[in-house]
Amino acid sequence: MSIETLSEQSEKAYALLKEDAEKIVKLIEVQMKNLTMPQCPLYEEVLDTQMFGLSREIDFAIRLKLVSEEEGRKLLTQLEQQLSALHEATMRARENNA
Amino acid sequence: MSIETLSEQSEKAYALLKEDAEKIVKLIEVQMKNLTMPQCPLYEEVLDTQMFGLSREIDFAIRLKLVSEEEGRKLLTQLEQQLSALHEATMRARENNA
Repeated sequence: MSIETLSEQSEKAYALLKEDAEKIVKLIEVQMKNLTMPQCPLYEEVLDTQMFGLSREIDFAIRLKLVSEEEGRKLLTQLEQQLSALHEATMRARENNA
Repeated sequence: MSIETLSEQSEKAYALLKEDAEKIVKLIEVQMKNLTMPQCPLYEEVLDTQMFGLSREIDFAIRLKLVSEEEGRKLLTQLEQQLSALHEATMRARENNA
């Protein structure tokens, strides 16, 4: 069994979590553009489920001491900010088109 | 930064995943006993969301090479079998009480 430092694993874990957060942004972006209105329950449900999934991953990484609670919280906050900016931009674009 | 072998981290990761699977069984057990009928959409939704959360954790652990794909698959299969046995037992108990 190879020996790997905890710090290497931590970096990998953090990168994966960032990647997964990015995927959620992309998914929501596509949804906003093509599928449904942001007020649609389906949109809310997809978003809630995805956020729940990511928060489980982050919590798991924290329990393994791969990321700190602080880092984990920041990841989620950043994602929420990105999504809220995306939401506002979409709403504005629709108003201008109306 | 302390050095920890990958194998120790793997054991910890696997134990955490087992623990989380156990928590889902307990949650569903409580739901079956007290809250709703298994046909209820709320029950289905809670179960789906919990299973999704666990599958995200397992997938994350696999990508970090902390558990093998085989182990991950087994964890989910075992959980599904436990839940299905629980479901059947509850249904039988209700029939007998009816």
